[in-house]
Amino acid sequence: MNEYYGGIEAGGTKIVCSIANDPKDILALERFPTSTPEETIKKIISFFTENQKSHNIKLVSLGIGSFGPLDLDPDSNTFGFITSTPKKRWRNTNLIQPLQQALNIPVFFDTDVNVAAIGEREWGAAHGLDNFIYITIGTGIGGGVIINGKPVHGLIHPEMGHIRLIQNASIDPYKGKCPYHKNCFEGLASGPAIEERWTKKAHELEPNHPGWALEVDYIAQALSNFIYCFSPQKIILGGGVMQQNHLFPLIRIKTLEYLNNYVQSEAILTNIDHYIVPPGLGNLSGILGAIALARN
Amino acid sequence: MNEYYGGIEAGGTKIVCSIANDPKDILALERFPTSTPEETIKKIISFFTENQKSHNIKLVSLGIGSFGPLDLDPDSNTFGFITSTPKKRWRNTNLIQPLQQALNIPVFFDTDVNVAAIGEREWGAAHGLDNFIYITIGTGIGGGVIINGKPVHGLIHPEMGHIRLIQNASIDPYKGKCPYHKNCFEGLASGPAIEERWTKKAHELEPNHPGWALEVDYIAQALSNFIYCFSPQKIILGGGVMQQNHLFPLIRIKTLEYLNNYVQSEAILTNIDHYIVPPGLGNLSGILGAIALARN
Repeated sequence: MNEYYGGIEAGGTKIVCSIANDPKDILALERFPTSTPEETIKKIISFFTENQKSHNIKLVSLGIGSFGPLDLDPDSNTFGFITSTPKKRWRNTNLIQPLQQALNIPVFFDTDVNVAAIGEREWGAAHGLDNFIYITIGTGIGGGVIINGKPVHGLIHPEMGHIRLIQNASIDPYKGKCPYHKNCFEGLASGPAIEERWTKKAHELEPNHPGWALEVDYIAQALSNFIYCFSPQKIILGGGVMQQNHLFPLIRIKTLEYLNNYVQSEAILTNIDHYIVPPGLGNLSGILGAIALARN
Repeated sequence: MNEYYGGIEAGGTKIVCSIANDPKDILALERFPTSTPEETIKKIISFFTENQKSHNIKLVSLGIGSFGPLDLDPDSNTFGFITSTPKKRWRNTNLIQPLQQALNIPVFFDTDVNVAAIGEREWGAAHGLDNFIYITIGTGIGGGVIINGKPVHGLIHPEMGHIRLIQNASIDPYKGKCPYHKNCFEGLASGPAIEERWTKKAHELEPNHPGWALEVDYIAQALSNFIYCFSPQKIILGGGVMQQNHLFPLIRIKTLEYLNNYVQSEAILTNIDHYIVPPGLGNLSGILGAIALARN
């Protein structure tokens, strides 16, 4: 009986489940909308049990990348719980235990962004790198951080979408979308912020729409701050908003402007096209990261 | 013959050398001004060779915390060099090799702020913690970062003093002191920025001087950003400006305001007095960190 790994990418709006060994050996992959915890967890369990049977394979272990905030502290009573999420039905939900019980295999988990970073390190744009960041700019903004080869947790886990940026109110009077901080990075530059500001979805804005210059400025401010904080070897930008490929060259130029030659590294000064990049795994960073996490 | 460790804290204005085993067993400690590299390195070598003889001890190894930027990449041709520093005479100086050659013992080195963080972890305010940051606010502003028990280097090393902050020009029209970014964190809140803005040195400003409210605001903005980036278990604030102890309670309150309950951790929400703290080793974090680095 062939052995495979299970992966789950748990997002606030959709769940991706997969059985795979690597990007070239994906046995099954399914997406479904996130509903109540009970219903969703039931669907996940069915996916794995049915596919194990129908393909006559054995799952070795399961990796999960989940939306959060998540309790990642093994010494905590709520280890493996989704904690203070704005999605009320999912607040204080034990995600790990019911899956572990039903499938009876080891379960590993981390934040959605850390897991996407793990995927990019294993098979994507950060292959072989020990220090880099993965930022997703979509419905929300979040960052996964790999330092010395390991994902960063710390007290809880990074929430890089909530740093403060400089907003020029005469150019952009928008109040900001974040319920906690109004005009933080996520409040100014997430998909919903773009939509509320311009009453159009991000993908509906023309490439020459003035909204993109603002977006580029906010992203470049954030990236220059992240470069000063983490000194990453690479920055990967994923998420729905970054599907707009025309943003990449503009973000690179603006980030260099903000750094103003302070960071004397060839990787940045002469090689920025390979420094700020899209995910090597496209929109599969998260689910393949979950497979990589399961494989350890 | 007793065995001891050597430590060097190399700053832009002064050098501290020590021979010690730990904070309770400091055999020798000397400070002298930083002059040319040749003269300074000669003085350092004399300190260690003479003290070895006069105390009849043997040095096992040497730890160095140095100003930078430093080349920390073991694969680089300029490994152990001070690189693009504004201190012209020290630019492209090999700090390690002449000391290694003269003393003939293993030499370990890192940035001044990473080494101070190592000292605080070994014997100070971060004892037992694997994830925390040490920020110095003085002539410059810099940060040392410990993640998963190890100092962060990455591409070069963090330069956390250069993140951008929000400046309200109607309250603070000061142009900023940073030669690269004008009004970044260091440009707004370092000792020289305070002195240029108010034409008085920081320690000459009365505790009720309006400059302190500005200073607290900038530091709290930076700390909330750092909390979102690193999710540290503790933040240690050292350096000359932070000798003003009255700043600590104000910084704690303002940081909580900026976070606005987003980070749901008791360490922050109910225990902030033990979360944002002065160095446990006072002004010896750097030199004792160098000893700790030498000990591994």
